[in-house]
Amino acid sequence: MRDPDCIFCKILDGSIPAIKVLEDDACLAFLDIGPLAEGHVLLIPSSHVETVDQLSAEQAGSMLRNLPALVKAVQAATGCEGVNVLQNNGRVAHQVVGHVHFHVIPRNVGDTFHFNWPAGKYPDGRAEQIARAIREDLT
Amino acid sequence: MRDPDCIFCKILDGSIPAIKVLEDDACLAFLDIGPLAEGHVLLIPSSHVETVDQLSAEQAGSMLRNLPALVKAVQAATGCEGVNVLQNNGRVAHQVVGHVHFHVIPRNVGDTFHFNWPAGKYPDGRAEQIARAIREDLT
Repeated sequence: MRDPDCIFCKILDGSIPAIKVLEDDACLAFLDIGPLAEGHVLLIPSSHVETVDQLSAEQAGSMLRNLPALVKAVQAATGCEGVNVLQNNGRVAHQVVGHVHFHVIPRNVGDTFHFNWPAGKYPDGRAEQIARAIREDLT
Repeated sequence: MRDPDCIFCKILDGSIPAIKVLEDDACLAFLDIGPLAEGHVLLIPSSHVETVDQLSAEQAGSMLRNLPALVKAVQAATGCEGVNVLQNNGRVAHQVVGHVHFHVIPRNVGDTFHFNWPAGKYPDGRAEQIARAIREDLT
């Protein structure tokens, strides 16, 4: 399934060009046109799915089995010191294109991509309550 | 394979407690003890593997086929407006524990987790050169 208004679907069907690095039945990987670092790659499913929760288990598994080799290849090609894999769902989470995409972002000391890490703590009993609700949705 | 010095391996073998939400042969998901938001979950492979490039395709696929349901369950349990999936490789990329883990981070307007997006551009010909090197490593 493709969405005629989706820029990533247009890349999948070839009507918009992209510099591709990997393609199979389940997915496509190509260079991000506005890279956070050289070698910044996007991995997308070959069907139009907006957010990761909407993928089937099979779609996710088939696409993401390629992730190790893709990260390894980006490291080999760029010589980067580290890699962030980042996948954003919803505008509040910085999703701009409404077609699932995993960013593979090469990292080096002194580079320009940054995030903070404001780790918190649960009040007594709250973590167990949240976990119970997560488990209930999973069953 | 477990590493006796790895805190996540100790969670896998039960010698350190964690609040678990999902477990199968390939992986375990549990609440992050220092959450960026309520419902912040970690998804880890059941073998000790340090970075994502070192997973086999099978390990990655078997673990990550659970990601859609896990994200959906975190959304259902927390009512969050968005989700970031983030996986860090190497100290420069903010990896603290040397056992692959995918963060599932609930996001809401006005929350405290932030990242910038310093998108750049490739000089002429450079993107094709990088992509060629990535493709070469993939084949």
